[in-house]
Amino acid sequence: MDLREYIADVPDFPKPGIIFRDITPLLQSPKAFRYALDQIKDRIPEGGVDAFVGIDARGFLLAAPLAIEMGKPLIPVRKEGKLPRESVKVRYGLEYGTDAMELHTDAVGRGERVLVVDDLLATGGTAEATVKLIERLGGVVAGLTFLVELRDLGGREPIKNYPITSIIEY
Amino acid sequence: MDLREYIADVPDFPKPGIIFRDITPLLQSPKAFRYALDQIKDRIPEGGVDAFVGIDARGFLLAAPLAIEMGKPLIPVRKEGKLPRESVKVRYGLEYGTDAMELHTDAVGRGERVLVVDDLLATGGTAEATVKLIERLGGVVAGLTFLVELRDLGGREPIKNYPITSIIEY
Repeated sequence: MDLREYIADVPDFPKPGIIFRDITPLLQSPKAFRYALDQIKDRIPEGGVDAFVGIDARGFLLAAPLAIEMGKPLIPVRKEGKLPRESVKVRYGLEYGTDAMELHTDAVGRGERVLVVDDLLATGGTAEATVKLIERLGGVVAGLTFLVELRDLGGREPIKNYPITSIIEY
Repeated sequence: MDLREYIADVPDFPKPGIIFRDITPLLQSPKAFRYALDQIKDRIPEGGVDAFVGIDARGFLLAAPLAIEMGKPLIPVRKEGKLPRESVKVRYGLEYGTDAMELHTDAVGRGERVLVVDDLLATGGTAEATVKLIERLGGVVAGLTFLVELRDLGGREPIKNYPITSIIEY
């Protein structure tokens, strides 16, 4: 199955010159969505994982079914200000200004092996921030899995010390 | 199983006087998360549904596993500015100012019966906006399901003409 057939290419979004890879057609196809999740499951790092970390917001769409199917905890990493309890925070640079991701301090245990899941690897900014959050709590990043990777944007560089899997590459 | 044991009550978040019902402990318990999803599945409206609509962002955590398990399309309703293709938009009032939700125009077909899924029914603003989006595209709201409902906030009122299910009530 060629999953690219279920990705809509949208030119000039969110700004001129960018081709946005829209995964909503894939989500709307039960067959394609099932296939994509199975591809991710087939590539779970050796030694397995103790929990799935989903990155706000589209990472939730993948991490949630994976966690429930594998019978493992689901841990949301969220944009700043969304988590209500004691959290760790990592700020990272955007083209203009900064953004921050947060994780509840009790979300990841010391030595717990987690798989980070997101829909898209672009520049790697949120992925790198997520790795830092997990490690600050003593967790172990067993790997990072992305549904779509934009190879030209160099997103593997900041997370090159970890196993990286992407299902669809551009 | 008493799912309330997996909800963390956080006083004064996001502001003084509000008790935030935090579902992250439930997500971190595979047993509780499995039980919550089964409760939702047991109460799917008669006649079934053709698709699951998840509301950005925590609704994704529930709608995604439901859609994949039931073999149905997953449709994300998103906050303003996130969807890249032609969309419909509904603006709704907040305590201060307004917010808007969007849905791709090709996401819901005429006559398609959808179940709206979100983590929380509070004032019902986003739920009402989501119903309007679906109906604007000719879709049929078969029902709305929430993991948590805050009864005192009157969130059923704006969506009272539709079947409403909530799994945990406060």
